[in-house]
Order: sequence, then C-alpha cells, then structure tokens
Amino acid sequence: MADKKVEAITSMEEDFAQWYTDVVIKSDLIGYTSVKGFMVLKPAGYAMWELIQHQLDSRFKQTGVENVYLPLLIPEGLLQKEKDHVEGFAPEVAWVTHGGLNELQERLCVRPTSETLFCDFYQKDITSYRDLPKVYNQWCSVVRWEKETRPFLRSREFLWQEGHTAHATAEEAEERTIQMLNVYADFCEEVLAVPVIKGQKSEKEKFAGAVATYTIEALMHDGKALQSGTSHNFGDGFARAFGVQYTDKENKLQYVHQTSWGVTTRLIGAIIMVHGDDNGLVLPPRVAPTQVMVVPIQQKKAGVLEAADAIAASLEKTVRIKVDKTDKSPGFKFAEQEMRGIPIRLEIGPRDVEAGQVICVRRDTGEKTTLSINELETAIPQLLETIQKDMLEKARAHRDAHTYVAKTWDEFTDTVENRPGFIKAMWCGETACEEKIKELTGATTRCMPFEQETLAETCVCCGKPAKKMVYFGRAY
Amino acid sequence: MADKKVEAITSMEEDFAQWYTDVVIKSDLIGYTSVKGFMVLKPAGYAMWELIQHQLDSRFKQTGVENVYLPLLIPEGLLQKEKDHVEGFAPEVAWVTHGGLNELQERLCVRPTSETLFCDFYQKDITSYRDLPKVYNQWCSVVRWEKETRPFLRSREFLWQEGHTAHATAEEAEERTIQMLNVYADFCEEVLAVPVIKGQKSEKEKFAGAVATYTIEALMHDGKALQSGTSHNFGDGFARAFGVQYTDKENKLQYVHQTSWGVTTRLIGAIIMVHGDDNGLVLPPRVAPTQVMVVPIQQKKAGVLEAADAIAASLEKTVRIKVDKTDKSPGFKFAEQEMRGIPIRLEIGPRDVEAGQVICVRRDTGEKTTLSINELETAIPQLLETIQKDMLEKARAHRDAHTYVAKTWDEFTDTVENRPGFIKAMWCGETACEEKIKELTGATTRCMPFEQETLAETCVCCGKPAKKMVYFGRAY
Repeated sequence: MADKKVEAITSMEEDFAQWYTDVVIKSDLIGYTSVKGFMVLKPAGYAMWELIQHQLDSRFKQTGVENVYLPLLIPEGLLQKEKDHVEGFAPEVAWVTHGGLNELQERLCVRPTSETLFCDFYQKDITSYRDLPKVYNQWCSVVRWEKETRPFLRSREFLWQEGHTAHATAEEAEERTIQMLNVYADFCEEVLAVPVIKGQKSEKEKFAGAVATYTIEALMHDGKALQSGTSHNFGDGFARAFGVQYTDKENKLQYVHQTSWGVTTRLIGAIIMVHGDDNGLVLPPRVAPTQVMVVPIQQKKAGVLEAADAIAASLEKTVRIKVDKTDKSPGFKFAEQEMRGIPIRLEIGPRDVEAGQVICVRRDTGEKTTLSINELETAIPQLLETIQKDMLEKARAHRDAHTYVAKTWDEFTDTVENRPGFIKAMWCGETACEEKIKELTGATTRCMPFEQETLAETCVCCGKPAKKMVYFGRAY
Repeated sequence: MADKKVEAITSMEEDFAQWYTDVVIKSDLIGYTSVKGFMVLKPAGYAMWELIQHQLDSRFKQTGVENVYLPLLIPEGLLQKEKDHVEGFAPEVAWVTHGGLNELQERLCVRPTSETLFCDFYQKDITSYRDLPKVYNQWCSVVRWEKETRPFLRSREFLWQEGHTAHATAEEAEERTIQMLNVYADFCEEVLAVPVIKGQKSEKEKFAGAVATYTIEALMHDGKALQSGTSHNFGDGFARAFGVQYTDKENKLQYVHQTSWGVTTRLIGAIIMVHGDDNGLVLPPRVAPTQVMVVPIQQKKAGVLEAADAIAASLEKTVRIKVDKTDKSPGFKFAEQEMRGIPIRLEIGPRDVEAGQVICVRRDTGEKTTLSINELETAIPQLLETIQKDMLEKARAHRDAHTYVAKTWDEFTDTVENRPGFIKAMWCGETACEEKIKELTGATTRCMPFEQETLAETCVCCGKPAKKMVYFGRAY
C-alpha cells in the first residue's frame, strides 16, 4: 500500500519497456488518436516541451541564433540534389501527391529535416560576405515513416528544433558545430539533470550528407544509451550541390560552409528513463510544469483551504505551484502526484494550520520534513535548487557506475551480456569491426568521446592497432 | 530625398497592393524558396509572430487554456465523418498517399484544421463529467491548397493557433465561444493597436460544420476589410458525428458541446496594412522585435559609440533596444529603420555626447525631440506606451472616418464605388440578398455586429422588413 497507492504500474525490474509505457500513459503525458504511429502530446507532456523550448531557445538566442519558419513540404527535385542526403531520407518520407482535387506535377515530401530547403533559401538570400554568417533555427514538427514506434523515442511525427547555419569559412562552421553541441550538453545537465557524453559519431553513424556529426549520449536507467542531440558540420558539400555562394571581400565567388543541429521531444523520453522510478515520473524542477503541489488534509475543516491558498499565493511569483482541491482522498492525491513526478508535495491539515507548519515531501528521495509556513518563501526555492542538483548527481553516479572498460574481446562480450551500460573500448577505426561488433553483440558505437584515453594499444575486435577510444552500448 | 531615403517603394496611393508587396519584401519579413505558394518567415517576420504568440498564449492561459499537440496528418475517413465539414475542406487539402516506399491503404490529408482529430481524441479521452471541460489549444501550421497566394493573407501554409474545447452544456460552449472572441478583440486593440468590430457571421459565411461563427473584422488603410480571427460554436453536431459522449452526474450518457477558435499569421498582414505608410512598416511597440534603435552619428569620433552602448545598456532591461554600428551612412540607417518600422530612433553624435542628450524620433509621427540622457530610463518606456496608444487612436479614427451608413440601394452602391470602407446597412437575413449584393458590388457581409442599431426598417437590397444591421465591405 505504502509504495503502490495508485493503479499499479509494472515495476522497472520486471519489465523496463512496459514500465516506460505505463508511465507515459498513466502520468498523462500522451494520448492517441486513430492516426497510426502518431501520438498526442497531452497538457502534461506538452508543458514539458514548452519548458524545454523556452529555456533552450533563450540559450540559443544568447549565441546569436535567430528563429525563422520554412515550408513544411519539399519538392522531390530539391531533396535529390545532395546524393548522400536523399539516400538517407528518401526511404522514410511521406509523399504528398495531390493538392486539392488535382494531382501535382512534382510530388512533395513532408519535411523529414530541412537541410535542402535551407540551402534553396540561402542560395537566394546570400550574395555577399556581408550576409554571413546566417545562424537560423526553426521550431517545428517533422515526419519520418518509422515502422516501429514508441512514445517520444520513435514516432512518425515528432517536435524538434533544427538549426541551420551558413558561414564564410570552414573554421567558423566547425566552431559553431561544437558550440551548439556544448549548448545541448550544458542544457541537458543544467535543466534536465541528464549528464551526457560528448563526442563524434563514426563514419557509419554520421548524418546523411555531413562531413562530421557530433553527438551527446545519455545513459538510461536500464543501461541502454540514448542519442539525445546531434550537431553536424557539412563543410561545403551542400553548398556545392545547391550553388550557395557569396562574393568575398576580394570580390571572388566562394562557397559557404554549413552546419545543422537539433534536439527533439525524445529529450522527454530521456527525462523519464533517467529519473523515473516504480512510482512513476520524477521530474527535475526546471522542467516540471508544476513544481510544488499543496495537498490540504481534511480540507473541509475550517482554515485548511485558506491556509493552502495563502501558501500558494505567497510562492506563486517564484515557483510553479498548485493546490489540489479535488474531492479525492489524500492518499490518492499523493500517489497521483508521485506518478506525475511533481518535485515537492506540501501537506497541510488542521493541526498544521494551528502550528503554523507544513509537511514537505521530496519526490526524488521521499524525504519528509516539517517546515514553518513563515520560512517557505526562502526554503522552497532553495529546496528546488537542491533537488535539481541532487538529481543530476544521482544520474551521474548511476551513469559512472554503469560505465565499463573492456580491453579484450572476452571482456567486451561478457560486459555487453551481463552489465548493461556504456562500454569504453579501443577501436581500429574500420567500419568492418564496427559492423561485426553490432552483429555479434547488438552494441553500436555511440561516439568517439572528446575526452580520449588510451585503454590498450589494439582494437578490441580485430587486434590491429587502435586509433580511437569509443563508447559502445546497446541503444534506443 | 527627405521622405524617400531607401530604395523606393511604390506609394500607397499609387498602388496599394504593390506597396504591400514592396513592404513585406524590403522590410525583410518574408523570403521565398522553390516551393510554390509557400513562404519563408525571415527573422524580422518570425520575431513578430513570436511576440504575438507569447502575449496571446499568456492571455489564453489566464482563461484556463492548456496547450497540446495533435498529429499533422488526418486519415480521409476521419475527415469525412462530419458532412458539412468535409464539403468545406476536401477541395483544398493536400493528400499524402505514400509513406516511405509504400502506398498507403488510406490516404491522409495534411491538416487544414483539426476539428476532426480533436473529436477523435476527445472520443477516447472523455468518459465522465469529471473530464469536462476540456479547454485545449495547439500552435502549429496548417495547409490549404489556395490557387492565388499573397504573403500573410493567403498562402498554402500558414502558422496559427487552434483552440478546441468540449463542454457539458450548450450554455458553457456558447460562453467560451464569446469569451475567446473577446480575448482576440482585446488582444488586437491592446497589443496590435488594431481596433476591430465584433459580430456574428451570416449562415452563408459561417465555418463548415458550425452552429454559429463569430468574427473580429478590421479595416485596412485602403478601406478593405480583413477577417482577423474567428470563434465557432459547434453545438453537439461534431459530438454526434464522432460519438463524443460523457456520463453525467445522474449516470446518463450525454453528448458534449464543442467550440473552436483561431488566429493566424494573417494578423501580421493586418499590422502592415493598418499602420504602414509610404516609408514602410510602422510597428506598434508591443509587437516590435526592436523597439528602439540607437544610431551613432560620426561614430568614429571619441566617445560616441561608448555613449550609444551606455544608453542601450541602461535601457535593455525594460526595452528591446539595439545599436546600429554598421558602416552605413546615418541617412541610410534612418531610412532602413523606418522601412522596418522601429518605433523609436535615438540619434547621438559628438555634440550630443558633450551636451548629455540625444535626438529622439518617433516612427509613427516623425516627431523629433531632444531628451537628456539622464531621463531616458523613464522617458523611453513612457514614450513607447504613448506611441502604442496613439497608434490605436489613429487607427480607430481612420476606421470610424471610413465607416458609412447606407439606407437605400443607391446609397449602398454609391458608397461601395466611391468611398472604400465599412458600410453599415440593414438586411432581411436572406442568403439571396447577400449573394445579390456580392455579385453586383463585390461587397460581402462582414458580420452582424453585437452592437446593433436600427438604421431603417427595410433591407437595403430587397426592401422587405429588415432583421439585422450588418457591416458590409470588400474584403481580403
């Protein structure tokens, strides 16, 4: 009873995938319609995306990013201009063939990503070095015709932001690529309390059309990796395919150098799978739509609701706070708010009113303390900061405790089978080894981390001289 | 030279349509790609949409609205469930027929509006009176396959918000319909400085599937009307078509009553056409991405740039302010900022620095004053408020001066031909008269205003007893 007050959800240990599905449904993050493979972001889920969007957008703008909006539909001819790109995306796009009652002369795909459109736009919009750099971003949805879908992790439509930049030089483009990866990494740690590994994708795993793809990789509670954001350097490949040129100061025509970078609603999946527990969601305060829920006990008794409202009124300028006045039982309310991951619960009954105090319960640790009503205005914002910090540290400790080193093939296979988590291992750099490892173990190269170590001299797979240390893992 | 400092734009008197096109292009609001009928919202245009979105969203939330996100694509079968609705929209939707490499079993349309999806969702999500009301909204883009397109006014894709609500009773639904129309009207007046007429659409002009459609109608500088926002009461028509039912307190099954309401990027068109002049855009401060531009004069002289930066630093907490440090001439900068509609320009040169003053120029009136640098922190926010208020009053005066009364058919036709604007006239309520008036004069019924007057006893068209006073006008 104590730990399972609401309709039971599957425990994480028993079946992590089912636990995940139970949580997203029972915490009311998503819903369904008759559109197969698509999901509804319900108020609790969308409010998290709004908090992500506002905080990330303000970090973008501090680096000079400007928002724009480009068309939803892309003519087939545009998609085909860059060879690697079309091969990567054509198999998974949705095609519009009719507009109104007429068949279109050229079919249009629903954007799976907008590199081609930005190139087409930049080709018209950029003429001189004075027009550079362009550091544009858009918030929108994209469609990819996935066969298997899972809420937030893989669905036929998802919300994201896609930044697309154009620069005068290769150096500037590389600098922006890394800068945005750092923005993502800092955001994940500081706002989502999700620690990430920063690194470069292998040739095999890089984005269709990119010279280099950088990634942030997070470790979920079950030891699987989640690619949580990527930043791509395109060099001048797209510019050459689309003729995006500018005249430099010497009046010579040059190709621009481009980047793109994006994160998606998948980040909500990361929050769930990094912080959640057997009672449901556990939300870091900075992405919690409701940070504090006041639960009146014996709320019909004189003074209780008034006291609850007064607490909410005194905190509402600094904290997202609500009072649960529904006619459900306190026990049910507790369980429901735990399921929804609300960081702090304040309980107040007739005796508390008399004593001028509340019971304060942390969602992340379950810790209960008694606080004087007078001190709430300073104590609650501080406690939210503490929870935010503690959740990051807890996630980091879990990640570190589930990061293993494999120097030999035996160690590698043993770890993959028995200890879910990241595996650091040396790699010769050959795609053949990468593919063999994936085929034999299901683990993929997550990234070549920026912070390299020399664990051994030889590749964990083929025994030839090693070139890079790689994070491997089974991934979502 | 004085009034035409930048590359000339067509004057409003000469050709209003061309003036409009010149302004949206030369003030950098929009751009184009190779996707026919679609436009790019460039940073200056998108920033206006962001300001609209943030301020409107916060007004929505004050009335209890929650944001959600529903799928982009709608199965044909869903669209067809409500007969009037499918007839209204089927001719103008884009159809997805292929997902990835396969043809779909059922084609999907790109949402032209989401009533059908919300019904499908509510049918699954609502079971009891405890689930009501649902007051949901989404910010997204929609696609309608228009033949003729004009930036912001009519394009194949536009950004908007669509609110969709479900209520236990007819009264509650009607109340919400009117409430949201009032939110729109207040927003247009207080934020966009665009006065509007509130009223009900005729049977002929109402939304496909609605019981009643309410509208806000604004008058553009050229005397044409622009429908600027609508709010629809659906009664239980959609609920019956989609089976959206709840059990009431007596445990009886009841149909919900629904509403929907929306405004679009068309509002940006209204801002341009209500406030603009022959020098370009004139932006109301509350939707101006940059509210104040500081222009250093002889900026290479010692102390000038420092003084400009100090002014910006002292104001940036309360005002959206920038310093134009480009190497363009002051005259060119002035003209460029006028084109972009920036409400206030502050000029500061070496002598001003010495005197501790700036020249302050209002975009809306051209008025120049000299202000002490010390008083800017109070004077500039006040002046922005004054400009906001004056722009609304000016627009209201223009609207009132171009609103005419026609009691007879001769007066009506004479006014339509010679005095562009709103025409108030009496109407019998018959669609036949409405259609005849449109055919003969090009004027349509804009709305039956909430504030009714009795101008005459008989219909301006047929002479039969009049039922309603109507605003007529030629419209965008």
